[in-house]
Amino acid sequence: MSKFSEWFHKILEEAEIIDTRYPVKGMHVWLPQGFKIRRYTLNILRKILDEDHDEVLFPLLIPEDELAKEAIHVKGFEDEVYWVTHGGLTELNKKLALRPTSETAMYPMFSLWVRTHSDLPLKFYQIVNTFRYETKHTRPLIRVREITTFTEAHTIHNSKEDGEKQVERAIEIYKQFFNALAIPYVITTRPEWDKFPGADYTVAFDTLMPDGKTLQIGTVHNLGQTFARTFDITYETESGEHEYAYQTCYGISDRVIASIIGVHGDQSGLCLPPDVASYQVVIVPIIFKKGKEEVLEFCRKMEDTLRDKGNLRVYLDDRDIRAGKKFYEWEMRGVPLRIEIGARDIQNGEMVVLSRNNLQKETMKYDPQTFTGKIDEILKNISQNMAHKSWESFNKNIRPVSNTDEALEEISKHGGIISFNWCGNKSCGKDLEEKLRVDILGVQEISKEEKTCINCGNPAKKITLLSRTY
Amino acid sequence: MSKFSEWFHKILEEAEIIDTRYPVKGMHVWLPQGFKIRRYTLNILRKILDEDHDEVLFPLLIPEDELAKEAIHVKGFEDEVYWVTHGGLTELNKKLALRPTSETAMYPMFSLWVRTHSDLPLKFYQIVNTFRYETKHTRPLIRVREITTFTEAHTIHNSKEDGEKQVERAIEIYKQFFNALAIPYVITTRPEWDKFPGADYTVAFDTLMPDGKTLQIGTVHNLGQTFARTFDITYETESGEHEYAYQTCYGISDRVIASIIGVHGDQSGLCLPPDVASYQVVIVPIIFKKGKEEVLEFCRKMEDTLRDKGNLRVYLDDRDIRAGKKFYEWEMRGVPLRIEIGARDIQNGEMVVLSRNNLQKETMKYDPQTFTGKIDEILKNISQNMAHKSWESFNKNIRPVSNTDEALEEISKHGGIISFNWCGNKSCGKDLEEKLRVDILGVQEISKEEKTCINCGNPAKKITLLSRTY
Repeated sequence: MSKFSEWFHKILEEAEIIDTRYPVKGMHVWLPQGFKIRRYTLNILRKILDEDHDEVLFPLLIPEDELAKEAIHVKGFEDEVYWVTHGGLTELNKKLALRPTSETAMYPMFSLWVRTHSDLPLKFYQIVNTFRYETKHTRPLIRVREITTFTEAHTIHNSKEDGEKQVERAIEIYKQFFNALAIPYVITTRPEWDKFPGADYTVAFDTLMPDGKTLQIGTVHNLGQTFARTFDITYETESGEHEYAYQTCYGISDRVIASIIGVHGDQSGLCLPPDVASYQVVIVPIIFKKGKEEVLEFCRKMEDTLRDKGNLRVYLDDRDIRAGKKFYEWEMRGVPLRIEIGARDIQNGEMVVLSRNNLQKETMKYDPQTFTGKIDEILKNISQNMAHKSWESFNKNIRPVSNTDEALEEISKHGGIISFNWCGNKSCGKDLEEKLRVDILGVQEISKEEKTCINCGNPAKKITLLSRTY
Repeated sequence: MSKFSEWFHKILEEAEIIDTRYPVKGMHVWLPQGFKIRRYTLNILRKILDEDHDEVLFPLLIPEDELAKEAIHVKGFEDEVYWVTHGGLTELNKKLALRPTSETAMYPMFSLWVRTHSDLPLKFYQIVNTFRYETKHTRPLIRVREITTFTEAHTIHNSKEDGEKQVERAIEIYKQFFNALAIPYVITTRPEWDKFPGADYTVAFDTLMPDGKTLQIGTVHNLGQTFARTFDITYETESGEHEYAYQTCYGISDRVIASIIGVHGDQSGLCLPPDVASYQVVIVPIIFKKGKEEVLEFCRKMEDTLRDKGNLRVYLDDRDIRAGKKFYEWEMRGVPLRIEIGARDIQNGEMVVLSRNNLQKETMKYDPQTFTGKIDEILKNISQNMAHKSWESFNKNIRPVSNTDEALEEISKHGGIISFNWCGNKSCGKDLEEKLRVDILGVQEISKEEKTCINCGNPAKKITLLSRTY
């Protein structure tokens, strides 16, 4: 196990994110603390999606014949599908698949729903569990057999252009989402051989974990008319003809939580962006024998104020244990802000505030008039500083190279993301992946001037990224 | 199909609650309108449970051997369990069950979590899909093969008394929840032969559908130490011994949504309690050629005010179709309050308001100063009136009888709930159920004086309810 892998497992356990001891490989239990982070993270995404998507909920089980309809699609998933074959002691007439993703559950219904051009666009999303019989080594939140937080959006359009616009819109949605989490990312168009099975093309978001490997955290697929043809999703045009609809889909998974943990965490443990922290503020009374009740009373009022007036998630830790132990625990659990209050602080009209992101302590004036506003401001600063720090470190880890030797050296020494010029040819790309034992993430940009492919030497305009990947 | 059954299916379709055309029997699609009602309903329950429960999320799949551990429990479910036997093309070493309920998924983990008396009580809940291979006739939201809204709470205690107190607390939780939905209920202790498999006893909530049949909408189970023994959930007592923990569990399902539809609906369609309505207020501009833009402008401001200042879910229906058609649609969809605004209303400083629950229209003064407060007040009144009406009608349909002939006549003529004196004997109860073709819901109360059992004539102190059931 790598150092990061060890750290990651330790955090999952000590910060009570998930319990990995569930007796089915690759399936885990969300613990209360982890569930809260998941809930607040999903709240952010829901709020963005709700602006112009409708939330729906489709069944988990997909009949064998529907799953098989789209040949390219099913080929991409057939090795990974869990099959329900029996109900009670009876063998089912038709096997049922646990959804690996929901195209084949949704699109037969879309075929019934879509009638005419003015019905479109339609934009739906759902938050569900999906299943993949992973044969590779599983890892909690990263490579699992039950994905519990699959948030998949599916849209239907009446023109190619509108479909393409939606891809752009989806990219903006995920930018907004990951920015709210202070998670840095690169956006690339995946190579042909790595696109979603059945899609015209796939755009992906990748972030970087502390061990130098990238993690795919979001994907956007332009499905063109492929699925519409297979599932007969047609609309009547203004002139009365019937045409196949254009579709997109895009999704994120539990990996978003893995990236929050991996990107922001440090030697002291978890470090949570205030918007998704289970508790945003913890108050630790510093108690000596003298004045104990006054300090507790003061802290209780502070808690009420922050909760009721500040609308914050706040916890008063009045347990009868050493303050040092409390500090350790709350730092481990990543609570963004800690307020320490002792008898002397009350006398002096002061409070001690620790920001988890930089572990800096500051003594500041306590003014009941401006208190909640002040705390709010500090939390906002923490969010901004976390974003600044994570992007800075991320950008440092994207390095351009001009030949394969350099690429190999960079990857071996530092990991991270390598930027290079590529011809775009599949056989060249596959060769490069094999030689360097990396994955091509995809094309980030088309350069204006023609350069030379670092692998085959042919003309190259595609500024492309590669990395070791999860 | 009964008249109610026909009405119910029509509402599900026309009010866009769920789509029943999904190609697996007993599994349905939540449509945007239905999903919103489901979301707001769950928000109410979540808010109550969050006060002293932790939300968690356990895997869907349960290994065969864990499911089989508790013999009485598995016997209750074995005919109904869906089995996953294959991952990809590989046969699994160990079959995996789709959870029919989560005791056997959770309790092996509880065994790892519970250590000492001071850890207890622990109270968890999760909102998940569960599966039952129903062989009876399926009905959307009422008898389904995928329950999509299973909200199950599980608690662990360090004394029998604390477990019993939790049963009382759970009953209070559900009272609060159903009261918020204006759903009337009876609470009974289920007869031995109808309790949850493995429970010491089961307390259930039943409401009444318009066809005179009762619908079980919530259950609370005292599990005693049965599962703790099976799954080895022990705690260290203060004196250092190890004792088996005491457990309870309680749950509700999609049937809550069915009851909202059934209890409050009428000939005009759905009628939603304001707290769970997808839209709480719809504004319909009454437009003639003259003054169209002013009316629309006025309505837009009204919409913004209600949304931003009143924090209400509001929809301005400015579609270019007849107002009458809009009225029909919004009544069908159950929107609690409709505001109609025409040019003359604006001149007169008036508005026309229709309350969906009694379909009464009222012209009232429009005063921008008090507007949102007024609307809020009307919505509160609607909630209260809905509760009053539903309880009144419900209570009328609970009738005491003093012999089996009377019971038979009442049930045949009116349906509803019959109250009677019962000896409590199993063979007598089963005989009565068979004779009257009904189900004994359970014991509601123990009477102070001894009466006579209406079936066997033996001494009877148990005031018991029976009905035709879903």
